[in-house]
Amino acid sequence: MAQFPYSIENLIAELSNLPGVGRKTAERYVFYLLKRPKNQLEKLCSAISQLQKQIFICPQCGNFSEQNSLCAICASDKRDRQTLCLVAESHDLIVIESTAEYRGLYHVLGGTINPIDGITEEQLNIRKLLERLKNEKITEVIFALNPDLAGEATTIYLKKLLTPFNVKLTRLARGLPMGADLEYADEITLGSAIKGRRDV
Amino acid sequence: MAQFPYSIENLIAELSNLPGVGRKTAERYVFYLLKRPKNQLEKLCSAISQLQKQIFICPQCGNFSEQNSLCAICASDKRDRQTLCLVAESHDLIVIESTAEYRGLYHVLGGTINPIDGITEEQLNIRKLLERLKNEKITEVIFALNPDLAGEATTIYLKKLLTPFNVKLTRLARGLPMGADLEYADEITLGSAIKGRRDV
Repeated sequence: MAQFPYSIENLIAELSNLPGVGRKTAERYVFYLLKRPKNQLEKLCSAISQLQKQIFICPQCGNFSEQNSLCAICASDKRDRQTLCLVAESHDLIVIESTAEYRGLYHVLGGTINPIDGITEEQLNIRKLLERLKNEKITEVIFALNPDLAGEATTIYLKKLLTPFNVKLTRLARGLPMGADLEYADEITLGSAIKGRRDV
Repeated sequence: MAQFPYSIENLIAELSNLPGVGRKTAERYVFYLLKRPKNQLEKLCSAISQLQKQIFICPQCGNFSEQNSLCAICASDKRDRQTLCLVAESHDLIVIESTAEYRGLYHVLGGTINPIDGITEEQLNIRKLLERLKNEKITEVIFALNPDLAGEATTIYLKKLLTPFNVKLTRLARGLPMGADLEYADEITLGSAIKGRRDV
């Protein structure tokens, strides 16, 4: 196999760690970077180190925070503090925020229970969730997890755990996505859409 | 569209510059990096800045060099200094090196003539090539360019330019690649294979 100079091999190895990036793609990135003006490399470098220095984890909800304390949502006094939306990852939270349909608080689990990938309930941010349910005046928990096996497993597991707190447990509606074609919809989606039908 | 905290948006924008990386892929990389331990981010950062500090361009052949002077190949006294292999990019050079079939010198053009991408002959490392042909005792120039339109155009252009130097001009053999299937070979490749047939 072709062997590049050390600094190039080193960066190829580092970039190969990125998800979905193999050696060939990493080589492509490195040769692209080598052709860029030096200040562009500096910008990339500083963007990475800024990420490390300026992104914290909110001690309450587990979301990314721009300061070393509560995140903007937890700290805001304009949010409905009775509703808690459970998401697997911070980027799910941001996607929900961008719909502007939800004004409550969030709780980021940090993943879903998935024994195949070695993610068990102990690795998730559940202890803090139970604490919050005990101490905050939450009346509804919305499960906003992916509608897949891991999401379902996590929902079932947490449902058991949260039932004693006497809060309303809901989950995102299932049905046809915008622009879908009935002809190509899978049975489970279509089944959910029929069960969850609404008045027009 | 979802809006992430500034440091995240900034790194997404930087990573979106990489070839073949759009916003979604860049987001995926950033969220992967956010989940890594801090020292891994530092390693990536230092690998990028090392690239900038430790990779130079060889003033003779245009290849990457690990010191701020001639590259290892140009400086070596074990190479055949009469043969010059013309390549478009440094990574082509490294692939040829890895075959261990070639012991001559190289010259990196920095691309091929391609008006669609705005690459003209002025942007290529041609002046230095003519200088080398004048000053060094080169007897053969091997065109190791991609067998595509841009490679052909560059070959035709350079053939005109190099003919006065009275050196042998050759190019890589065309034919069926190892493991190919005659049934699926294209006409041009098969035509080249027939024209270039060899004694068994």
